[in-house]
Amino acid sequence: MSMRAAVSFAAMLAASVATFGVPAFAADEPISPIEPAKVTNPGLVELGKKLYFDPRLSKSGFISCNSCHNLSMGGTDNLKTSIGHNWQQGPINSPTVLNSSLNVAQFWDGRALTLQEQAGGPIANPGEMGSTHALAVEVLRSIPEYQKEFGEVFGETKITIEEVTKAIAAFEETLVTPNSRFDQWLKGDKKALTTVELEGYELFKDSGCTACHNGSAVGGNTFQKMGVVEPYKTNNPAEGRIAVTKEEADRFNFKVPTLRNVALTYPYFHDGEAATLSDAVDVMGRIQLGKKFSPDENGKIVAFLKTLTGDQPSFALPILPPSTDKTPKPHPFD
Amino acid sequence: MSMRAAVSFAAMLAASVATFGVPAFAADEPISPIEPAKVTNPGLVELGKKLYFDPRLSKSGFISCNSCHNLSMGGTDNLKTSIGHNWQQGPINSPTVLNSSLNVAQFWDGRALTLQEQAGGPIANPGEMGSTHALAVEVLRSIPEYQKEFGEVFGETKITIEEVTKAIAAFEETLVTPNSRFDQWLKGDKKALTTVELEGYELFKDSGCTACHNGSAVGGNTFQKMGVVEPYKTNNPAEGRIAVTKEEADRFNFKVPTLRNVALTYPYFHDGEAATLSDAVDVMGRIQLGKKFSPDENGKIVAFLKTLTGDQPSFALPILPPSTDKTPKPHPFD
Repeated sequence: MSMRAAVSFAAMLAASVATFGVPAFAADEPISPIEPAKVTNPGLVELGKKLYFDPRLSKSGFISCNSCHNLSMGGTDNLKTSIGHNWQQGPINSPTVLNSSLNVAQFWDGRALTLQEQAGGPIANPGEMGSTHALAVEVLRSIPEYQKEFGEVFGETKITIEEVTKAIAAFEETLVTPNSRFDQWLKGDKKALTTVELEGYELFKDSGCTACHNGSAVGGNTFQKMGVVEPYKTNNPAEGRIAVTKEEADRFNFKVPTLRNVALTYPYFHDGEAATLSDAVDVMGRIQLGKKFSPDENGKIVAFLKTLTGDQPSFALPILPPSTDKTPKPHPFD
Repeated sequence: MSMRAAVSFAAMLAASVATFGVPAFAADEPISPIEPAKVTNPGLVELGKKLYFDPRLSKSGFISCNSCHNLSMGGTDNLKTSIGHNWQQGPINSPTVLNSSLNVAQFWDGRALTLQEQAGGPIANPGEMGSTHALAVEVLRSIPEYQKEFGEVFGETKITIEEVTKAIAAFEETLVTPNSRFDQWLKGDKKALTTVELEGYELFKDSGCTACHNGSAVGGNTFQKMGVVEPYKTNNPAEGRIAVTKEEADRFNFKVPTLRNVALTYPYFHDGEAATLSDAVDVMGRIQLGKKFSPDENGKIVAFLKTLTGDQPSFALPILPPSTDKTPKPHPFD
């Protein structure tokens, strides 16, 4: 595992805290600290990292997982909706991959129960990476270094899409972001937050935001209606969780997004229509809570939200094994 | 500088070799070893690395330098011709950025004399990143962390496109790939190459390949006609260096591509029409040298060429500073 020293230090710290129990200080709060990832199979994670960055999983040879969940940019593409194969406009805002292992399910409508199930989706989605599972696997099978690495990780294998997605998911599970200033505060460092940030946190709690945005991911753990007090107006046709459950009660229910690293994951909402944190706080206050935050209140809540940026994953850019003469060629323009 | 230990060790080794002079062994050869980069301004290089990976230099917010010169894939996109803004098909094969500091000039037609001059081209090319220099600079100026970093590197500054391209070029100058097996052999390790690889090298020299592919980059240092003995047939409209010099004699003259890391930089030629090294060797033999290599000869030359893969640049994926509420928004779909 190639996290940086700061993360390793945080890991030790977290381990020692775990040994003696979580301090009472944090236990009273609706938000709990992000714990560093525990890597049990580093070979699997390294393989998954390569696959995450490999654009040969797409039809064009140009789009990788990292294209839309860019680990240089908070695990997102910072676009309203993503760019897919042939520059198709995606239907929905790409959620951050950071801390996604803490989500109750994946995608805005929760249609994938696990990261592994999610990872297979974009590869074969004609509007995203535009490939097929069979072709992606054929590409990987043609590359001796991948054959060897899959063999080392999975034992004798022909390489399967289940192995591909398992490896990607294992890498994604390492993409947690501990050690935010808010978590330092949760763990007892009372100087980690400014007065304004703490006032923002109190407002965040007192206003009811923590009804949905709670737990270690500050969200991600329930589905909730977008527009409780007044309807949310959008041109985006996504209908939310009803697409999965077929229950009318789930219409316009979306997975509550994590607020971890929210300063990095703009723009906001499933349609990406809130350009700034200030906008997002304003809309959420009005349509979810029936509150009109004053500019001063809005600023304080935004200041608190910015304390949720944790240590970003740090690792060497993976070097991908080259294709061979037998590797199926990319088809970017047909 | 964040090269890995192996590179630093190679740097020490190279320094000690330099102290005592290049061994006679290598001096007789038309190819000289790649020397590790000497970083004199690490702050400038770090800034350039961020900019190299920052898709906000493009209109869409989706395309960075690394999109088409992907450092996970030999500094190329491994496509015949690149994908630009709005999925436009590029006119020519993207040359590798690796060892590009050793080129006599940049682009296939040499229209940029320096890496710095090159770096400004794609940002403002409507078919590539699709932005303008003014917009790219405006984006960077809106981001306090970039303001601070430019200030630290350049002193009091408003951020200019010259500074942006200077930083990118400084990063690119570090992207050299020493320590290939061929270079180990050049430096005296006679066991570094197999008999077949050495036979391939002898064929490469005896056949005349080194007339153009020589020096430390095994190319990159002259412009030569594509199709000396017989014409090269292609549907690609590029006319080569005549576009720069307006001299009829320069029609279909292209910069000789480097063969360093050529096993990673497929497909080949300015039109990307040679899919494999074997194809490329066959075509080059016929149209440049009037030789039809036998399958055995072709295989040996290819075996030699694969020994030119050096240590790939190794560094932590840069984490980019977030945009602010004032940052101009990306426009991927208009």
